Amino acid sequence: MARRIDLVADLGEGFGDWKMGDDDALLDIVTSANIACGFHAGDPRIMDRTVAKCVERGVHVGAHPSFPDLVGFGRRAMDLTGDEVRTDVIYQLGALQAFATAHGTRVAHIAPHGRLGNLVAVREDYARAVVAAVLVVDPELRVLVQDGCLADAASEADLQIGVIGIADRAYEDDGTLVPRSEAGAVIHDEDEIAARTVRMVLDGTIESRTGRTLPVTVDSVLLHGDNAGAVRLAQRLRDELVAAGVEVAAPERRR
Amino acid sequence: MARRIDLVADLGEGFGDWKMGDDDALLDIVTSANIACGFHAGDPRIMDRTVAKCVERGVHVGAHPSFPDLVGFGRRAMDLTGDEVRTDVIYQLGALQAFATAHGTRVAHIAPHGRLGNLVAVREDYARAVVAAVLVVDPELRVLVQDGCLADAASEADLQIGVIGIADRAYEDDGTLVPRSEAGAVIHDEDEIAARTVRMVLDGTIESRTGRTLPVTVDSVLLHGDNAGAVRLAQRLRDELVAAGVEVAAPERRR
Amino acid sequence: MARRIDLVADLGEGFGDWKMGDDDALLDIVTSANIACGFHAGDPRIMDRTVAKCVERGVHVGAHPSFPDLVGFGRRAMDLTGDEVRTDVIYQLGALQAFATAHGTRVAHIAPHGRLGNLVAVREDYARAVVAAVLVVDPELRVLVQDGCLADAASEADLQIGVIGIADRAYEDDGTLVPRSEAGAVIHDEDEIAARTVRMVLDGTIESRTGRTLPVTVDSVLLHGDNAGAVRLAQRLRDELVAAGVEVAAPERRR
Amino acid sequence: MARRIDLVADLGEGFGDWKMGDDDALLDIVTSANIACGFHAGDPRIMDRTVAKCVERGVHVGAHPSFPDLVGFGRRAMDLTGDEVRTDVIYQLGALQAFATAHGTRVAHIAPHGRLGNLVAVREDYARAVVAAVLVVDPELRVLVQDGCLADAASEADLQIGVIGIADRAYEDDGTLVPRSEAGAVIHDEDEIAARTVRMVLDGTIESRTGRTLPVTVDSVLLHGDNAGAVRLAQRLRDELVAAGVEVAAPERRR
Repeated sequence: MARRIDLVADLGEGFGDWKMGDDDALLDIVTSANIACGFHAGDPRIMDRTVAKCVERGVHVGAHPSFPDLVGFGRRAMDLTGDEVRTDVIYQLGALQAFATAHGTRVAHIAPHGRLGNLVAVREDYARAVVAAVLVVDPELRVLVQDGCLADAASEADLQIGVIGIADRAYEDDGTLVPRSEAGAVIHDEDEIAARTVRMVLDGTIESRTGRTLPVTVDSVLLHGDNAGAVRLAQRLRDELVAAGVEVAAPERRR
Repeated sequence: MARRIDLVADLGEGFGDWKMGDDDALLDIVTSANIACGFHAGDPRIMDRTVAKCVERGVHVGAHPSFPDLVGFGRRAMDLTGDEVRTDVIYQLGALQAFATAHGTRVAHIAPHGRLGNLVAVREDYARAVVAAVLVVDPELRVLVQDGCLADAASEADLQIGVIGIADRAYEDDGTLVPRSEAGAVIHDEDEIAARTVRMVLDGTIESRTGRTLPVTVDSVLLHGDNAGAVRLAQRLRDELVAAGVEVAAPERRR
Repeated sequence: MARRIDLVADLGEGFGDWKMGDDDALLDIVTSANIACGFHAGDPRIMDRTVAKCVERGVHVGAHPSFPDLVGFGRRAMDLTGDEVRTDVIYQLGALQAFATAHGTRVAHIAPHGRLGNLVAVREDYARAVVAAVLVVDPELRVLVQDGCLADAASEADLQIGVIGIADRAYEDDGTLVPRSEAGAVIHDEDEIAARTVRMVLDGTIESRTGRTLPVTVDSVLLHGDNAGAVRLAQRLRDELVAAGVEVAAPERRR
Repeated sequence: MARRIDLVADLGEGFGDWKMGDDDALLDIVTSANIACGFHAGDPRIMDRTVAKCVERGVHVGAHPSFPDLVGFGRRAMDLTGDEVRTDVIYQLGALQAFATAHGTRVAHIAPHGRLGNLVAVREDYARAVVAAVLVVDPELRVLVQDGCLADAASEADLQIGVIGIADRAYEDDGTLVPRSEAGAVIHDEDEIAARTVRMVLDGTIESRTGRTLPVTVDSVLLHGDNAGAVRLAQRLRDELVAAGVEVAAPERRR
């Protein structure tokens, strides 16, 4: 049963003059940040500022690599080869590492974004490509995963894993997420999300859409900051976890 | 008087399916490579393959950052702020470093590309921006320069410098290059280029366009590989230097 | 003295998931829209929706071509050749024309964006490039100009011109805008902006920064919609013009 | 039985400084050109020059729209919505139309490129998206198709169709192409390609991979110009068709 939990959110997802989400508010709530690396969002100035703010507030920096698709925000499937995924991830990871180094920190984790993030759970070649990139660039990186191929491939390679729990998504009985295309996939009731979050972290269980109690072991909970309501909910989730005696902190690096 | 010289060329300047130059031939001739980092040319696959080939052949890997202008190949001036140059350079440098790490080597030098390469010699803010990027990412990087602002800023910051000699360009009496826009700026006669190269390296002098003998101290000679003729000339320059007793090798890293 | 005025604003300046400004509010206020064409902002979906909304509300559609610089929002000078400007403008103009055709209208005007918009006033080669593009694609297009090279080149080519007045910018005694880099270049007092707008349109005069009364003949007034305050001001300017008896309408096409 | 045939090739597929294929040689052989529109290849200068050359030589101009994927040359599947395909096609088509207008001609046809070209044959939503774009922009455009969804959707919409024959690809018994991933999908023997071309055009038949004689009605034959060998073969195919009494010409526009 987790008594310590990492709170993570996607940050730095503007581009040039365009903004996305309320990063400043989220940075006071989360313990780890998935930072866009320029392929779906993020540009060198935004990456620089976002890493600087993370360092100021003690938030751990993570890479959030994507398919190369700015106009589609990395949400559209692209049929890349495994080698294309591997090299695109190395490129984005390296770019973020340089900003981390510039600000006196290291990239602590990697969490594929958007459609790539969905596909690494079900395509073995993509999962292996991400693992191959991590192994050659920094094998101490923690890999954020949900159940699926990436979790398996990272474990096999003896990489450190962080399991992400998503409290506002419905789960199937087998522990996978209900696809967004289905009704009920996203939970909107804030009380329910809060209750699910605390239960997931403290009890290590989640209720599936059919009402079954599933065991889950989550290391990180994903928060959102798209709008003022999302930020308020994120703050509430943090507050309830703290009130329940959970330690909210990013994990130590393995070495 | 230099008895040891680094031979350098721009490599990895294709993009996707598009090719540029004969990298494989050049890699057998040069000792250092300026590798495109994705902003004017180069994509993650090309960067990966180019670094791999450099490592195979013992060629030192260098970053060749550019203005963000694929369609203009980085040859068009862009009025970026110093902060934009600094962050664009950090991004590109970091991306290449990840490929270097992946192949068991380190990025040894940095040489701004195209119009950015011209402007760092005359714009102090751009020169300082490149130096600032190097200082925070890897202060052991050698900075390839010609006379001008970047040479001054890098020296002031106690960075290691490599002076590039360009044997096929005419020099003014003050040691600067004759601008490309003027007649006679580029020397096409291969015998003359060869003679100038050997003299630059062995005697430490170059003849200006007015016929004056100028002292020069070059650490690297820039070669080209745009076409079969350029590659043949590059091989000839290497052969003549070797025949003249010059040691052709990349410099040791300072630390 | 103008008794009829065109109210124009930049629209469709989001990209993918990123928003910019409150287009829906502005569309109820303006009579003409400068629509981003994909080079600094705007993507095919946004262009399609923006043109559709313009047609619904009777707002005239104009092209807002830019330097190719998404990350810089077209605000950074790029040293393109005249031929590059000409062909980039043809490309962007054509793309917008197709959406106009798709929605049963025609592109009515063209107004270069951002830094290109500044430079066509002072660089003859860029002014001629824009005029050359208009002449070969649709010589009936009205060209929105301020004083300067584009106004001259378009007049010489017998193109229809619309002079834009910018009520929130200070003017020099010679009728040019005070550069943004100087203090007092932008007027922030809403009462002053409103008074200047009405005077510009009704009296055909504007007061320069030194207090001189300059004659101006404006066909269009540029409004902004960056935030709620800007939209309220835009509505106020329209209301005051209407109250003063001015007809607010886009000009008829010449033919 | 076709006694008149249109010879078509993909042209203008360079980007910036990068070249692709020998356009000048091909332009003396073909009667229609599929011109890249900037999404997988082609930039405004290349589009301008390519259209100009087509006009000079009487070659018909066609749009060759693609998924937005420069680094992948439009060859990677992207999971766009039908609306994204429709608007991306409108954008690219409009851009090319402007260059056609600039050079005194009109876009005569449209032929989706690469993976989009494959997918419109099997995805109804993409086929309908292309047809929707053509209907609103220029319903007189001829749509180049192979058997499949786009052929059906274009016919249903009463658009003019041109069926493309590909003589160097193996056909299944049902008239579809053998997928490139299978052995024998591409025919390399030049004599066989020549024989298949003439037979396809003159006899209206093609032999399937299993040896069956299939009826085909081709309006256009696709030629390639990737290298010197491909250009020589293209010239040979044209010569053999002419020698066999076939009229080599682009079709008249319907209206």
